[in-house]
Amino acid sequence: MTPDEITRYVHEHIPLTRHLGAAVLEWTGASVRLGAPLAPNLNHRGTAFGGSLSALAILSGWALVHLALRDRGVEARVVIQRSELDFDDPVDGDFEATATLPPAGDWDRFLATLDRHRRARVVISSTLRSAGGVGGAHRGTYAAVVLPPP
Amino acid sequence: MTPDEITRYVHEHIPLTRHLGAAVLEWTGASVRLGAPLAPNLNHRGTAFGGSLSALAILSGWALVHLALRDRGVEARVVIQRSELDFDDPVDGDFEATATLPPAGDWDRFLATLDRHRRARVVISSTLRSAGGVGGAHRGTYAAVVLPPP
Repeated sequence: MTPDEITRYVHEHIPLTRHLGAAVLEWTGASVRLGAPLAPNLNHRGTAFGGSLSALAILSGWALVHLALRDRGVEARVVIQRSELDFDDPVDGDFEATATLPPAGDWDRFLATLDRHRRARVVISSTLRSAGGVGGAHRGTYAAVVLPPP
Repeated sequence: MTPDEITRYVHEHIPLTRHLGAAVLEWTGASVRLGAPLAPNLNHRGTAFGGSLSALAILSGWALVHLALRDRGVEARVVIQRSELDFDDPVDGDFEATATLPPAGDWDRFLATLDRHRRARVVISSTLRSAGGVGGAHRGTYAAVVLPPP
């Protein structure tokens, strides 16, 4: 899937992402970068609403696991189980969330467990950034369940 | 402020909350209950998007601190510093986030620090619920800074 195809899929199936203005900007095979404009995500202080930052971060980790599994030919249902987000400086511009594959050992263990038990869990880190710098650090715990062939 | 007034304020100043369909349903002086319909918050699995649940939970804790301080005549800027959300069962209906004041000792310490230093931080717990049961447990760390009189 190209970034545009992922964006269209997400907009169609998760309507709130349209209102966030979320778009998949880049998928490298090891990280995925999502972006959102500030305007629809403003809070009462003229900076980004914490709920918008959290939503984009959660989405970035989900997209990473989904795409990385798909690249390996694994169709899985991926759901978030736990979200931890440390907010840094207020975000006063358009922002991005970049999710990155975990260290190879953790990722390989996740794949091996998924292969053996058809379900497994992995922690994905995402970084929120804007032109002003780092806006937050997210750790999402995602559970994957392999789907039976259609 | 009445629940409707808070809802209007939030919709006006945090546009994403309109798209969440978030509304303040009740403010008791010790807890605040926010609600949102499922439809605008669906994900690709037909249940509530994790980012929507997170956003409503973050908003509920913010509203609680804001309203509880206002009831005590304190006008403060309240911002979230850390969000932790454990997701339970998938949420397959309209949902609510109820934020509750912390134990009296913690809350009194927060108020005393705010009075002395004009800034303080407090952890607020919120519970996500739908007709199907508990959908998640949120812990938000909020920082308050007292605003100078206008």
